[in-house]
Amino acid sequence: MKQNIYDNPDFFKGYMDLRSSESGFNAAIEEPAVYSLLPSLKGLRILDLGCGFGKFVSFCLQNKAEFVLGTDISQKMIIEAKKRIKDTKASFEVIPAEDFEVKEDSFDLVVSSMCFHYVKDIRPVFNKVALSLKENGYFIFSVEHPICTSMLKGWCNSDDTPKKHWPVDDYKKETKRVSNWFIDGVIKYHRTIETYINELVDSGFSIKRLLEPGPTGDMLTERPELSEHMRRPPILVISGTKTAQQV
Amino acid sequence: MKQNIYDNPDFFKGYMDLRSSESGFNAAIEEPAVYSLLPSLKGLRILDLGCGFGKFVSFCLQNKAEFVLGTDISQKMIIEAKKRIKDTKASFEVIPAEDFEVKEDSFDLVVSSMCFHYVKDIRPVFNKVALSLKENGYFIFSVEHPICTSMLKGWCNSDDTPKKHWPVDDYKKETKRVSNWFIDGVIKYHRTIETYINELVDSGFSIKRLLEPGPTGDMLTERPELSEHMRRPPILVISGTKTAQQV
Repeated sequence: MKQNIYDNPDFFKGYMDLRSSESGFNAAIEEPAVYSLLPSLKGLRILDLGCGFGKFVSFCLQNKAEFVLGTDISQKMIIEAKKRIKDTKASFEVIPAEDFEVKEDSFDLVVSSMCFHYVKDIRPVFNKVALSLKENGYFIFSVEHPICTSMLKGWCNSDDTPKKHWPVDDYKKETKRVSNWFIDGVIKYHRTIETYINELVDSGFSIKRLLEPGPTGDMLTERPELSEHMRRPPILVISGTKTAQQV
Repeated sequence: MKQNIYDNPDFFKGYMDLRSSESGFNAAIEEPAVYSLLPSLKGLRILDLGCGFGKFVSFCLQNKAEFVLGTDISQKMIIEAKKRIKDTKASFEVIPAEDFEVKEDSFDLVVSSMCFHYVKDIRPVFNKVALSLKENGYFIFSVEHPICTSMLKGWCNSDDTPKKHWPVDDYKKETKRVSNWFIDGVIKYHRTIETYINELVDSGFSIKRLLEPGPTGDMLTERPELSEHMRRPPILVISGTKTAQQV
């Protein structure tokens, strides 16, 4: 069964508090990185896998997208999104990222933000995204960086390395990792960068950009606490385009 | 001035002892990964940047390459290569990877094994490789993995993470790192995966494969000491092809 932590009331509350801040990690590092890779959204048909409460869907509508479909495994998130966004150009569906219905060549852009590390098998999702995109359509996603998901232990000290550092272990073991984040027992799936890149290529994508974003210089001056994200990359963002089919 | 550690007599001896073993790390993990990405070498014109004593050049000749140029910053290495390989289809030159002479559209394949982490500015090298390759020509290289070069501290223990683990720090700081390997003060240049991928794309390459190889299952049974390479990836291997020029 697919994990649906976002419908847990404690998780939902913690997450909504976190994300409602415009100065949080997502607003500071993750969103600018994803947004930096976007094409002009004007007139595009867009799919947002794991849309949460619809922040990116709103952004697409503000930027004149023709149509945006937001999907999320969490009913609570979709209820919240529908409350916030009342626009005939937006549609929402409660469905896990793995299970969205493919309509071939129907989207210009598929975006997924911090969702795929909850997905056990990524290849079928990439294949479905490739099928759903028009030729040369864009696919952009962010996930927790494999350096972070390899252990999920957080910063540590050691005798031989007195400075705090980020520990990596079991990097090649692509299995689930269990952590506590708002609630106990949150399951994430660690994957290598090798797997992300090669599964994309094999699904028919041409890699356009890979980002391991951290805070900018200005941000570091204003908010020195973000400097830890210079020391190990918190997230991985990859963009690709659907290549012309080889005949 | 470019660092030329390989002409240091102590380094040269240590390195030659290491590489003369067919059961070492390179033979077990690095070479199979690079070789797995090679096209058929028959009839190809090949450039090997940082060819060392010519092991890959020999392999190309055995596999019916038309011509192989091996370059290395180290005169000692090139002398050794010339001693081992006497074939009119092979040519050698003492020159740093950054400075090889570009002849446009002259190679089908450029390979570089464990060399670019010694190169300060990678973009000019990628540009020169792109110019030197024929359209759809292959570029394959291996480097020390950024997880390893970020700190160069090696395995460590800690109080909060009792198991040994690999420490990462200063990941986003793309500067030189100084370590001791056979001799003191070996300089390596740490770069992120973001930089490797995006500089390749911007130099006109289509990314084909990214590998973070470790030992295979069989290897682990025979040589359990290699299992540490499952815990953090020792090397990064990337292959791409030169894309058709956009007009």
